[in-house]
Amino acid sequence: MAPVTNVRALFNEVPKGYYPEPEKTTVIDTTQSIDPETVSLDGGILIKTLDLSIDPYLIGQICDAPLRSSAPAFEIGKAVYSYGVGVVVRSENASSKAGDHVYGILDHAHYNIKKDLSSAGLEILGNPHNLPWSTYLGVLGLPGKTAYYGWKEYSKAKKGETAFVSTGAGAVGSLVIQLAKRDGLKVIGSAGSDEKVLFMKEIGADVAFNYKTTSTKEVLAKEGPIDIYWDNVGGETLDAALEAMAVNGRIIVCGMISMFANSDAAGIKNLGQVIAKSITINGSAVNRLEDKHRADFGREMPALVASGEIKHKEHVWNGLENFGNALLAVLKGTNKAKAIIHVADN
Amino acid sequence: MAPVTNVRALFNEVPKGYYPEPEKTTVIDTTQSIDPETVSLDGGILIKTLDLSIDPYLIGQICDAPLRSSAPAFEIGKAVYSYGVGVVVRSENASSKAGDHVYGILDHAHYNIKKDLSSAGLEILGNPHNLPWSTYLGVLGLPGKTAYYGWKEYSKAKKGETAFVSTGAGAVGSLVIQLAKRDGLKVIGSAGSDEKVLFMKEIGADVAFNYKTTSTKEVLAKEGPIDIYWDNVGGETLDAALEAMAVNGRIIVCGMISMFANSDAAGIKNLGQVIAKSITINGSAVNRLEDKHRADFGREMPALVASGEIKHKEHVWNGLENFGNALLAVLKGTNKAKAIIHVADN
Repeated sequence: MAPVTNVRALFNEVPKGYYPEPEKTTVIDTTQSIDPETVSLDGGILIKTLDLSIDPYLIGQICDAPLRSSAPAFEIGKAVYSYGVGVVVRSENASSKAGDHVYGILDHAHYNIKKDLSSAGLEILGNPHNLPWSTYLGVLGLPGKTAYYGWKEYSKAKKGETAFVSTGAGAVGSLVIQLAKRDGLKVIGSAGSDEKVLFMKEIGADVAFNYKTTSTKEVLAKEGPIDIYWDNVGGETLDAALEAMAVNGRIIVCGMISMFANSDAAGIKNLGQVIAKSITINGSAVNRLEDKHRADFGREMPALVASGEIKHKEHVWNGLENFGNALLAVLKGTNKAKAIIHVADN
Repeated sequence: MAPVTNVRALFNEVPKGYYPEPEKTTVIDTTQSIDPETVSLDGGILIKTLDLSIDPYLIGQICDAPLRSSAPAFEIGKAVYSYGVGVVVRSENASSKAGDHVYGILDHAHYNIKKDLSSAGLEILGNPHNLPWSTYLGVLGLPGKTAYYGWKEYSKAKKGETAFVSTGAGAVGSLVIQLAKRDGLKVIGSAGSDEKVLFMKEIGADVAFNYKTTSTKEVLAKEGPIDIYWDNVGGETLDAALEAMAVNGRIIVCGMISMFANSDAAGIKNLGQVIAKSITINGSAVNRLEDKHRADFGREMPALVASGEIKHKEHVWNGLENFGNALLAVLKGTNKAKAIIHVADN
């Protein structure tokens, strides 16, 4: 096999605002060539990238947002990276063999060379149900785990209760809606387009509304009180939910896109409700819940996805040049479903 | 015995701002006379008022603050009421006898007539350690229970951890400091005067500071991270604490005076930290924890107060005309310790 270009998306510039600028945040580099058959691996593994995941947390790695995550910022001139699925092309390492599919953090490049699986934080994907590989970046990946672990750990859901899920058509929220329905709850979902409202109804939400055209406060006043609020956005929606919470209500905060992206946001004013109603708020971080819930997730979720009992959707961008486009869509909510950058078929 | 005047403090006017106006909020009424020996009780109980408690929650009963409590507002022209201790003068009821001391909600009046103890929510005080009756309004009353129940239920305190207590010289905060020290924690306390700082040191705080002259943010950056934050104030202090919290930190919100009294407050901006650090926030309402913790409280606390192992302090106003003065001091933090209105010695 002749050498091929190892196309890479390099981090180019910290955005001036909080949002990525697709033409500037990353640039495509085509200067590196690689011969997959002969490139020196020094005992390591050569991985061909198939699909890459774009998730809101990446804002913390492209800019100094006030609420940035603890992950280190991307380095200018080096490839950006995120969760992805790849296939092992060659291995000089006992941890994997050619043909294995792996999941974990991958550079946004056609090829990654890693020393071994464990030091790279990669794991081999079993895929007994022959699901599309991108499934392991969405409903069976980080967003799916975020929903599942957080719901199992903090919801204390009881049949007959009422849950409200913001960003209910998103990768995380759409699974939360379905988990809540499976637990026998009445579920209210909000999202930012009528198309998303339709999807929330398809997956079982009892009440689904477009927060851009319908008042969250009014819907919650009518359909509440809310026993469990799954908060993906913070800001005014959280204030409205606080007002509509029931006594002993639980709020699971999982994302606060509105607050990440806007340091001038008004802030939360209704925290007094937390006292008045003995509310519990839990910040849910998937990495700290991994050890406790991953086995249950692996046992339960792939089968439910394969049987169609759990539904999910993807919004696919083709090609590494779409890092900024996809992240911007995720942060502005203009993506239609879980954002995936598709790189190669297999 | 000849008839005496039953002096009463009547609710007179809803304050225009959020604070009571001492000359206007209540007025003293001397038009009711009562002969304790002959007044008709209709099978009820005549109680002489000894001490009355003034606590921050009363703001919710004098005005339409946005975060008002669920307790009903006082009625114009009727006596205000709060927790108090009285002594039974005459009883035509099996629930109590003359000489019994009782605790519960009492009208701010020299005398109260009640149908029986249970319908009035009153209980007989045992006082085996012969403590001053006002003790049952402070460290052994609502503030003491607020601190004790909330700490036992939500702190998950572990020896060697660090706790931060705002309003640490107050009726609730000063007990939280001592409970945290008894659990082996490093304790940081903040309050609004140098005198209060001294008191926090006397009761064992490792670090005590005046938030009016020292930056809360700087103290917490130096002395943190904070595993447990006991929040009596909300607002900027809560934002500063959120920034200084440790991973898996617990915040117990118990009072938010700054947010009660100021609907234009900026709101809480650092809630993103809740996700980044897997923080749990619990709203603590003493009434919902009563059944679970009251027996432990009764077994443990009076003995600790009697032996001097738990210290406490009172700020006493003499006379029913002081309702507005005392509540204003409590809300503005100019009281020196637990606010008591003393009515009669015995």
